[in-house]
Amino acid sequence: MLIHPDRLFPAEPGARQIARRLYERVRKLPIISPHGHTQAEWFARNEPFPDPAKLFVQPDHYIYRMLYSQGVLLEDLEIGQSEPKDSRRVWRIFASHYYLFRGTPTRLWLDFAFQELFGLQDRLSEETADLYFDTISAKLGTAEFLPRALYQRFNLEVLATTDSPLDGLADHRAIRESNWKARILPTFRPDPVVDPEFGGFAENVAKLGGTTKEDTSAWSGYLKALGQTRLRFRELGCTATDHGHPTARTADLSMAEAAKLFDRVLAGDADAQQQELFRAQMLTEMARMSLEDGLVMQIHPGSVRNHNRKLYERYGRDVGADIPAATNYVEALRPLLDRFGNERDLTIILFTLDESTYSRELAPLAGHYPCLRLGPPWWFHDSPEGMRRFRERATETAGFYNTVGFNDDTRAFLSIPGRHDVARRVDCAFLARLVAEHRLDEDEAMELAHDLSYGLVKEAYKL
Amino acid sequence: MLIHPDRLFPAEPGARQIARRLYERVRKLPIISPHGHTQAEWFARNEPFPDPAKLFVQPDHYIYRMLYSQGVLLEDLEIGQSEPKDSRRVWRIFASHYYLFRGTPTRLWLDFAFQELFGLQDRLSEETADLYFDTISAKLGTAEFLPRALYQRFNLEVLATTDSPLDGLADHRAIRESNWKARILPTFRPDPVVDPEFGGFAENVAKLGGTTKEDTSAWSGYLKALGQTRLRFRELGCTATDHGHPTARTADLSMAEAAKLFDRVLAGDADAQQQELFRAQMLTEMARMSLEDGLVMQIHPGSVRNHNRKLYERYGRDVGADIPAATNYVEALRPLLDRFGNERDLTIILFTLDESTYSRELAPLAGHYPCLRLGPPWWFHDSPEGMRRFRERATETAGFYNTVGFNDDTRAFLSIPGRHDVARRVDCAFLARLVAEHRLDEDEAMELAHDLSYGLVKEAYKL
Amino acid sequence: MLIHPDRLFPAEPGARQIARRLYERVRKLPIISPHGHTQAEWFARNEPFPDPAKLFVQPDHYIYRMLYSQGVLLEDLEIGQSEPKDSRRVWRIFASHYYLFRGTPTRLWLDFAFQELFGLQDRLSEETADLYFDTISAKLGTAEFLPRALYQRFNLEVLATTDSPLDGLADHRAIRESNWKARILPTFRPDPVVDPEFGGFAENVAKLGGTTKEDTSAWSGYLKALGQTRLRFRELGCTATDHGHPTARTADLSMAEAAKLFDRVLAGDADAQQQELFRAQMLTEMARMSLEDGLVMQIHPGSVRNHNRKLYERYGRDVGADIPAATNYVEALRPLLDRFGNERDLTIILFTLDESTYSRELAPLAGHYPCLRLGPPWWFHDSPEGMRRFRERATETAGFYNTVGFNDDTRAFLSIPGRHDVARRVDCAFLARLVAEHRLDEDEAMELAHDLSYGLVKEAYKL
Repeated sequence: MLIHPDRLFPAEPGARQIARRLYERVRKLPIISPHGHTQAEWFARNEPFPDPAKLFVQPDHYIYRMLYSQGVLLEDLEIGQSEPKDSRRVWRIFASHYYLFRGTPTRLWLDFAFQELFGLQDRLSEETADLYFDTISAKLGTAEFLPRALYQRFNLEVLATTDSPLDGLADHRAIRESNWKARILPTFRPDPVVDPEFGGFAENVAKLGGTTKEDTSAWSGYLKALGQTRLRFRELGCTATDHGHPTARTADLSMAEAAKLFDRVLAGDADAQQQELFRAQMLTEMARMSLEDGLVMQIHPGSVRNHNRKLYERYGRDVGADIPAATNYVEALRPLLDRFGNERDLTIILFTLDESTYSRELAPLAGHYPCLRLGPPWWFHDSPEGMRRFRERATETAGFYNTVGFNDDTRAFLSIPGRHDVARRVDCAFLARLVAEHRLDEDEAMELAHDLSYGLVKEAYKL
Repeated sequence: MLIHPDRLFPAEPGARQIARRLYERVRKLPIISPHGHTQAEWFARNEPFPDPAKLFVQPDHYIYRMLYSQGVLLEDLEIGQSEPKDSRRVWRIFASHYYLFRGTPTRLWLDFAFQELFGLQDRLSEETADLYFDTISAKLGTAEFLPRALYQRFNLEVLATTDSPLDGLADHRAIRESNWKARILPTFRPDPVVDPEFGGFAENVAKLGGTTKEDTSAWSGYLKALGQTRLRFRELGCTATDHGHPTARTADLSMAEAAKLFDRVLAGDADAQQQELFRAQMLTEMARMSLEDGLVMQIHPGSVRNHNRKLYERYGRDVGADIPAATNYVEALRPLLDRFGNERDLTIILFTLDESTYSRELAPLAGHYPCLRLGPPWWFHDSPEGMRRFRERATETAGFYNTVGFNDDTRAFLSIPGRHDVARRVDCAFLARLVAEHRLDEDEAMELAHDLSYGLVKEAYKL
Repeated sequence: MLIHPDRLFPAEPGARQIARRLYERVRKLPIISPHGHTQAEWFARNEPFPDPAKLFVQPDHYIYRMLYSQGVLLEDLEIGQSEPKDSRRVWRIFASHYYLFRGTPTRLWLDFAFQELFGLQDRLSEETADLYFDTISAKLGTAEFLPRALYQRFNLEVLATTDSPLDGLADHRAIRESNWKARILPTFRPDPVVDPEFGGFAENVAKLGGTTKEDTSAWSGYLKALGQTRLRFRELGCTATDHGHPTARTADLSMAEAAKLFDRVLAGDADAQQQELFRAQMLTEMARMSLEDGLVMQIHPGSVRNHNRKLYERYGRDVGADIPAATNYVEALRPLLDRFGNERDLTIILFTLDESTYSRELAPLAGHYPCLRLGPPWWFHDSPEGMRRFRERATETAGFYNTVGFNDDTRAFLSIPGRHDVARRVDCAFLARLVAEHRLDEDEAMELAHDLSYGLVKEAYKL
């Protein structure tokens, strides 16, 4: 057996009993996945997923960053190669290093998928590598492992993707137009057209003009084009935007200043400070548009992208070399909050990679401003200990009701049920501790378990 | 039942038994409240407290910041209105949102007061709102709920208020001159006359000159006026000062530099940096005076006051919109410590809103400098998890004996017993864990439980 | 009894049973001490250790910083006095203040030594001071308490000292040339010749030229002299270097720039920024040399040394007045990592005094770069709670296998077994919790307990 029915529950028998009861309340609830990086194309085409290596290893930077840190070469994992050579060999390398994941959430997610989806019972290792490869390969070829079948099996109620404003959303449209009943929604992620440091920024802005028939070489046309694109997303069910800036800085420039700054960044004449100021201004513009069109705003700041220069030069973005940095919210968000902080019809969900801000900045901010909510622990902190720290540090100031449930935020579709299961269990364990310590009554914990698993995410993301 | 006899004790039965024994040792000890924001006027006049809304909701920014964060309007809570309109309606709004406080310390403090003082047994909710309102209203009208009766009932041994140097302390004098035996003491909080950004700073300094007959338009007269006012406070039992600066920065300027800087800030010509430097210099001046007159010095740095511009413009200070910021101590305190750090007759109690400094800066500083002690977890961190983090992070470096017991720091008089009860229980739970893990013997834990609840605060604050 | 057989294990009986089994697996493993500050001279001469005060109190800044913080004068402890006056009096002062160490790791280490080495059973206090003094004094005079006998009794497999490049390592050579079988190895700590702020820097560089016959007044000769000295250390068994800079900053200047900067710092013309840049450059030079000669590199940044000006003026360095500061790694290490981060034959072990970096910076960095490993909790964080925080915050991102086991890092030879015992117990307790919560299987935890106690340190330090 790879996963135990009591996993992640408190060791103390009394608290464990409480956790079991709470978990039983939420175990079968549908999954709402309001933020992630799966591909609409999978569901539009509904073709079988490829082999185990391509499914589990090559798209998952959680996995290969760990292997790389211990001396496995990305070449040997066939990362960044258009033509796969030997997937079984890649899988065997992974299997023989599986012990590296002891104590990590990756291990929990994978074991869940291995056992619950593929019926595997013996731990992955050098010895069982081929058994795993063959078992998974065989199942992937069957009808019940097609993307749409898995969506149903996972009991998904909503699944949001993350999409560029330049994306025509043809796959989303195709899903809608098919007779398949599922809610797969786009999310508006404008980084390619609002971050001057994003590769091809000026070209992207020009393309945006092309698709919207607006003059995006001028500030006013650029804003109109963004607003229009947001509406295009909304028409396909989109309820949220997402913003992945290096910092949480916001600005509130005058129209004239903003227009001038836009000209400069578009011309490529802006220095690093001006680029940062432009991103800052764009967060405030996005908040203004959200107040108009109702899209929920997500801010994911504080990642130093592409920290490993050599890997970036060779493999490009998203190869597991993004490193968090200390992040300030209290001053950074002030310009935006000065303008829109008291709006009750605006929802801004804040994320962080800097846990020291949970109790110092984020919980006090979200425990005061009507527009603010706290996103769940993100990325490196999407883990049992990370979730526990989040609840312990944020709840006493922000309460539970200024948080928004769980995000799986994953590229790995097959890990979605396992990730939500970990989140539900850790929340039940936290609630069980409060009940066992008589800080909360069990009937309240029952209600909260439901809210944290299902109710809050639905409400916060307007789903 | 709203509160359980074992609340906040460890779930594990062995450790819980130890916690019960330790708590039994300290449960009935008198309460020493060396720092808070109750009003001497209440005890001088000894008039009944007003209705439940005015007692519990409107003065408590912990409560209405949470309600506000979830969309309740401050107008609907009748905040900042001179004439109350419908207290029962305010109370009903509060009651119907009481679930928001699940998992927060506010819930623990309130339930304690509801049950222990007012005999209420059913949870506050929309349904029980009127029962609560009527029960509390009726009791507030009785003799045993008058301020002086409650002081006795709460088993208070000392209660310190926080007062401006411009306050004549008439209420404190009236209490002293009455035949009522109680120790209600003022605390010298000079922010209005030492912080150039405080509203009406120059006028305040001029008024200080008026009350002291010193020429406060000159540096030397200003210092004399402060020293003289400190003595006036001391004569009424004051043992401590309190300083609420944006940062912990200190300075040690020459007499001539300081005098010049004073002229500039008084003339209103100082920029933000010079204002900060002036506050920094004043901390060192206050330390110097403390060494002379024996007043214990408290530093509460790191709050970004009035973060919500619109609320500040409409309602003024203290409306729940103060947000903590990252705080540095190791360099900021250096000028003061260079001068007075090795004085054994000086006590400086450090507080923080930045928990990352507990193990990194505060415990190492207090574990070395003879003049330094660590104040208890403050404000957002005055909570079970906050207290646990403080003990876990500070004790191993600073020990228990460089800490100073508990502060309730509250405006809400009726919450005082509940707050001290939470602190005593959390400390007993922490000690019980150390005993259960054989890191401390139970006889030592007994002694420590007494010290943390009673002994250390008395000694540190010279009470 | 001073120490309990179940100390530091979880209170919950099921988890405690697991911890006991894991600990039994590692209890008798040899001790590898790859980083510390014991003196090779002790083992070269093998003379009796002096009296209890000189053995336990005067060399241990953990002890006298706590006593000093509570008003004990360093004079009364005879710190910094060449001629001891009354060791028994010093011991009595220490004994009567022993309660200050409740809840600290110092207490755990000392009680271990008192009971396990000296057979003491009653707690140290004013009453038992003389009993302790006499018992310890008597044993120190016996053959079984000579340094070499203790080395064997402690079951040490390797003991590394920390040494200046100007040290001739005569004691290390003497030990090697004696017929005593023990591995006592030097560590190359070049601070005196690479840190321009180190006392006597220029003279030290000149001396380095003298011992190596290189022209250390020029950049190229200076580098050659360092390389040559590293080889001299290596010949005596050294496997590692150690670097104690104020920050983790690194640089990668051109040859010409570096040479020019060297000239300036050597001439004493460098300002603080240039001195910092020179240290930064030297970390990168050291990494380059490590790639050549195979020495493992340790970086211990973030201590503000000699924070107490008056004590420094009177007593000099290392008197317990070093205070941690916030430390950045993500930008600071970038120049070095840009150049060498992907080298699989380089090992750089990172330490920190800023726990907020564990999950934010260090675990993500070590969980990606092949050359990086995380050192154990250091100094103020070398404690049960500190170790628990490290495992909880680092493991989920970096795994266990990017860590390197335990360092005792001590000047106090007699505390070595007690320190390793605490580390082994805390690791077993952490693993037991993972097993009890079904996040890890017990057979895996068994393997990990062995790796964390013995395997990883041996591999990481190439011992």
